[in-house]
Amino acid sequence: MRTIEYHDTPVRVRYAETDQMGVVYHANYLIWFEVGRVELMRALGFEYKKMETEDDCHIVVADAHCRYERPARYDETLRVRTRIAEWRNRIVKFSYEIFREADDELLATGETTHVICGSNGRPKSLPPKYRDVLVELQVPTPDRSDA
Amino acid sequence: MRTIEYHDTPVRVRYAETDQMGVVYHANYLIWFEVGRVELMRALGFEYKKMETEDDCHIVVADAHCRYERPARYDETLRVRTRIAEWRNRIVKFSYEIFREADDELLATGETTHVICGSNGRPKSLPPKYRDVLVELQVPTPDRSDA
Amino acid sequence: MRTIEYHDTPVRVRYAETDQMGVVYHANYLIWFEVGRVELMRALGFEYKKMETEDDCHIVVADAHCRYERPARYDETLRVRTRIAEWRNRIVKFSYEIFREADDELLATGETTHVICGSNGRPKSLPPKYRDVLVELQVPTPDRSDA
Amino acid sequence: MRTIEYHDTPVRVRYAETDQMGVVYHANYLIWFEVGRVELMRALGFEYKKMETEDDCHIVVADAHCRYERPARYDETLRVRTRIAEWRNRIVKFSYEIFREADDELLATGETTHVICGSNGRPKSLPPKYRDVLVELQVPTPDRSDA
Repeated sequence: MRTIEYHDTPVRVRYAETDQMGVVYHANYLIWFEVGRVELMRALGFEYKKMETEDDCHIVVADAHCRYERPARYDETLRVRTRIAEWRNRIVKFSYEIFREADDELLATGETTHVICGSNGRPKSLPPKYRDVLVELQVPTPDRSDA
Repeated sequence: MRTIEYHDTPVRVRYAETDQMGVVYHANYLIWFEVGRVELMRALGFEYKKMETEDDCHIVVADAHCRYERPARYDETLRVRTRIAEWRNRIVKFSYEIFREADDELLATGETTHVICGSNGRPKSLPPKYRDVLVELQVPTPDRSDA
Repeated sequence: MRTIEYHDTPVRVRYAETDQMGVVYHANYLIWFEVGRVELMRALGFEYKKMETEDDCHIVVADAHCRYERPARYDETLRVRTRIAEWRNRIVKFSYEIFREADDELLATGETTHVICGSNGRPKSLPPKYRDVLVELQVPTPDRSDA
Repeated sequence: MRTIEYHDTPVRVRYAETDQMGVVYHANYLIWFEVGRVELMRALGFEYKKMETEDDCHIVVADAHCRYERPARYDETLRVRTRIAEWRNRIVKFSYEIFREADDELLATGETTHVICGSNGRPKSLPPKYRDVLVELQVPTPDRSDA
């Protein structure tokens, strides 16, 4: 059985992402979380672009939380470590750690919670082909499926 | 007859828009041009949101040019002065000047050229109700309409 | 005594802030929180730009959390309602509610926690002139000051 | 003699970079130009971060121009091809082509002009160690050096 504990994605800090404090502006971490999330899904065989266009599955953000431990700086290479923290019928929760590549320092941690929605904005269940992959991965899931 | 030479829109510089050089990151000026363009159209009675949803008219950017004279800085109030520089059947060209409100210094100038497109990405003519407004404004237009 | 329960700041959604789902990309809410925070401080007589340049006080983000209730859409006018939720010696916590102006719908809520730092990145106490304002406002504060 | 005609840098389109037209928002191309420029300099042995911190050389944008040929879309891999188009004593000009990796389609072209400045914002000459590299590359340069 295939298992995946986490997926690491490299990100290089762009000048555009810094602010006048000389460090990365904090909202950009949510964008890096997105990059990590998409690459984790790709590693599992889910191409998020196709989830939208072929399966009408949009992973809508319902909650985002980030704790900033140490500042990221221009031109540093970071490692976005992403995990699927939990999934239920219509809800997926990811967790993230961002490390500085050069010295493995932990710069930030976070979580995002998502609701699977159709393009009409209504919640829907994750299609079986995706659910089967998550089941196989033994991603933690509560005893009973929620709405 | 109603005439409008230009439209002024105020913008306050956000922290997110600065970079580690201590000034505004240059790509943000294109976003302010967008703000000026939308507010000029609103002043003319065009609500761009409705142009997209009701008339299937998208003003797609084909060319953007910006000259940076002096840096904009955090928390400054700027004035985006926007003009319709030219329009033809399917093409509209806007020009911009960005001033620092406090001392009227000119910080940047620019132009953007747009093609009117449907949501299918194909060029189309500007609907008569919008064209009539532009005619009334005596916006400069070449001798013959182009494709 | 002057009291301020909250401060409301208007924000108009920019095209640049939307994504291909047709709604605002979620990281932009953190930028609007910043706008609300800066305008709340301005209403209290703190000019954040001067806090940085004259008092070497940087309000560094340590934690940001946002819950997304309903999507914000292009060209909508929003109201960012900001409160100082708590302050201690070196820590300030803000809370936010984002409403759609047209119908008063609550679109998102959030909190950010900040550490007061010098430009060297080291935590420092908020200077008395700012602290006095917060005391006067009766912003809730714990029994004992923390480190 | 080492020669470099251009440098190619891959960029993957992020969801954050799209807008509600379903394509990349046009200001992001300037950010990709920045990525291409920095990676071209790195390939030449210039680390831009060190140019700022060790040599007090800031490559300030004075002019940016982009022509949009075809839209870039979410999750596409792009190739940013960057050239040094011209350099003089205090001025460097880069040119860019952005291709879609999958089919080599040209999506956009552009140029940026930069002035070498110290952290005081005053123009200065490029230090000899960088100039020597450019001379060796036979980057086109006008007959006489300008101010």
